[in-house]
Amino acid sequence: MSGVIEFWFDFGSPYAYFAATQIDAVAGRCQRSVIWRPFLLGAVFKVTEMKPLIDQPLRGPYARYDWNRIARKLGVPFQHLERPPAGLVPSRAFYWIHEMAPELASPFARAVFDGFFGEGRDLGSQQETVELAATLGIDSDQLSGALATDRVKETLRSVTNDAIARGVFGSPMFIVDGEAFWGFDRLGMMEEWIREGGW
Amino acid sequence: MSGVIEFWFDFGSPYAYFAATQIDAVAGRCQRSVIWRPFLLGAVFKVTEMKPLIDQPLRGPYARYDWNRIARKLGVPFQHLERPPAGLVPSRAFYWIHEMAPELASPFARAVFDGFFGEGRDLGSQQETVELAATLGIDSDQLSGALATDRVKETLRSVTNDAIARGVFGSPMFIVDGEAFWGFDRLGMMEEWIREGGW
Repeated sequence: MSGVIEFWFDFGSPYAYFAATQIDAVAGRCQRSVIWRPFLLGAVFKVTEMKPLIDQPLRGPYARYDWNRIARKLGVPFQHLERPPAGLVPSRAFYWIHEMAPELASPFARAVFDGFFGEGRDLGSQQETVELAATLGIDSDQLSGALATDRVKETLRSVTNDAIARGVFGSPMFIVDGEAFWGFDRLGMMEEWIREGGW
Repeated sequence: MSGVIEFWFDFGSPYAYFAATQIDAVAGRCQRSVIWRPFLLGAVFKVTEMKPLIDQPLRGPYARYDWNRIARKLGVPFQHLERPPAGLVPSRAFYWIHEMAPELASPFARAVFDGFFGEGRDLGSQQETVELAATLGIDSDQLSGALATDRVKETLRSVTNDAIARGVFGSPMFIVDGEAFWGFDRLGMMEEWIREGGW
């Protein structure tokens, strides 16, 4: 995957939402393409012994404040959700869509992020995920059927295990030419790194 | 303290060392002055239930790699220390120096950082701290005497409690005009925030 920017994220992560609003512009300036890789941060937290940011003393209140500040700076809508939305079903749906209609995978991911954080909707249920996919022309019966299969569940498990094996511990995290960059606030550093050919 | 950039840090933090190499340039461009505020991150971790970065699975290896990458980018020396150096004695010394000879406080802090991370020396003992201070003209007998007093110990405890009360949970962390920015990689954002008058 040399040359490609792998964009690893959990759908429930506000910092990943912000990155999703910027990643195409960054990649365009660097003349790289982007592969979207949703995974389950909760599974990674079992390895890293971390808790969701908003459950952490001191860090939680800062994060809430910081999200709103970044949204104002970027000029993107941001709805405050009391709990991180659950990315499980949308992530499973993502990989099925990616297999069936690859060109719809990242538009679907954007729609999930926009629903979660732009509109503050909890789209984590199967019904809502299927309805959202339908707005992109994805067949509801087929997707519903797929979501019930072990194969779709196994794909996400496998991707998440791959994330852990490759050292992905946070959301968002970017890997390009073997180089990892963690965090929304490293997008600029990644861009410099690509343009300058590393340091 | 309106207008001043408070630079909160633990002497054992590589990201704080990197920030220390940049903070004067950032402040200069923003026409702000800097107050250096060492505190004990270990005491904060008891509140946030965090562990030192290098002890964290997945995050530790990334951090080690990232430190070397940042050092190369900034063009500053960086020695890999097996364990984070202990900032307790230098932090106590800092506040005593700050009281006795305020103009020597930040030069002392820089010398500690340079010793720890530029040269890879473990300066955490009282003797080494006193010797380092002596290179700046600080009287060794007076400093040694001060380090033995409860008052000097209490000052650092009080500063660290103040850090926690103000939501300082990491190193480095910057507070300017009541706005907090966490992390070396937020120096650029802080600079934009000051120059643009916030968002």
